Amino acid sequence: MKLYTYPGAPHPRRVHIYLAEKGIEIPFEQIDIMQRENKSPAFIGEVNAMGAVPALELDDGSHIAESIAICRYLEALYPEPSMFGSAPEEIGAVEMWLRRIELYLMMPVGMVWAHGSPLTKAVVKEQIPSVAELNRQMVNKYFEFLDRRLAQSEYLAGPNYSMADITALCTMDFAANLNGLPHDKGQVHLSRWYDAVSGRPSAKEQ
Amino acid sequence: MKLYTYPGAPHPRRVHIYLAEKGIEIPFEQIDIMQRENKSPAFIGEVNAMGAVPALELDDGSHIAESIAICRYLEALYPEPSMFGSAPEEIGAVEMWLRRIELYLMMPVGMVWAHGSPLTKAVVKEQIPSVAELNRQMVNKYFEFLDRRLAQSEYLAGPNYSMADITALCTMDFAANLNGLPHDKGQVHLSRWYDAVSGRPSAKEQ
Repeated sequence: MKLYTYPGAPHPRRVHIYLAEKGIEIPFEQIDIMQRENKSPAFIGEVNAMGAVPALELDDGSHIAESIAICRYLEALYPEPSMFGSAPEEIGAVEMWLRRIELYLMMPVGMVWAHGSPLTKAVVKEQIPSVAELNRQMVNKYFEFLDRRLAQSEYLAGPNYSMADITALCTMDFAANLNGLPHDKGQVHLSRWYDAVSGRPSAKEQ
Repeated sequence: MKLYTYPGAPHPRRVHIYLAEKGIEIPFEQIDIMQRENKSPAFIGEVNAMGAVPALELDDGSHIAESIAICRYLEALYPEPSMFGSAPEEIGAVEMWLRRIELYLMMPVGMVWAHGSPLTKAVVKEQIPSVAELNRQMVNKYFEFLDRRLAQSEYLAGPNYSMADITALCTMDFAANLNGLPHDKGQVHLSRWYDAVSGRPSAKEQ
């Protein structure tokens, strides 16, 4: 196996934290997304038609793209420790929270990035400032919701750390560091959770 | 168990087709999203904080929201026939294609719906026609991509029908029927696949 990746970017980082939590080592090749290497005809033709990292090359030469698809493939090979839940209720809860984070946090952060960042100005056809502003408000509102959730639950999906936590952490660091959208330290439950998950060796090293 | 749903809308329909394919029967309660019953304080407070259907009520009174989370919970209870893949490679491929459909087809169709439909005008803060037009082009371009994919593969994720096919079908019917975005019948591979999946009893009944 080989992982095409760009360590530090939020989607590849999800996979790297997952690998560290599971203790799985996979050789990787860096694809410089700042130089748009992921948009080269060779990469699109042979690795991922969507022109994005991460992508995993299997030993038979086929590829799996999309962060969570890569993790689910690895989870099927190496089930323990579980990052997607074990009992049916937990499997459902992890998927629910993973998708809530993606839909209601990652998606608006991505819109702020696309419509509000000077770094994406050159590649986005038309930046619409009101779209960035609207999504900025949505992100802040969702932090309040997460704070209420984490008043009731140790981790997002319940008592166990999961892929939903990994995804939320990567999204929040991207929001804070590159989009000027940190959570409010006064959100004590969200802050308690954030300190715990970002303090894990898997997160600190990636 | 009880399913809160609005049969016919694209996300609930994914779950109904899944249930029909698996032969699972669950009592359901219709939540009239046209009357915004899903936004009532009672529904948001007790069933799904995100104010959306479908949502599944478990026998202990807890709830699982998000279409795919509901299906994954049921898949853990009733593994056969598999809709998310069995071998690791297939599990990875189903998740990759499911997410490709969601990100590159469902997402732009949703933007056309939000920014271009008279039916959403009253609930969207500001409709931006250029956003609808840009996403309309993306949908048509992705139909071309899917046509090329289905020239090589019987179903989206490989030789077996899966949750990726169910999701693509529901998205395409929503695109064609409510957003004026049918696929081109000249896309013979996509059309072959579309006729096959929409001709299954599970799809015709839902």
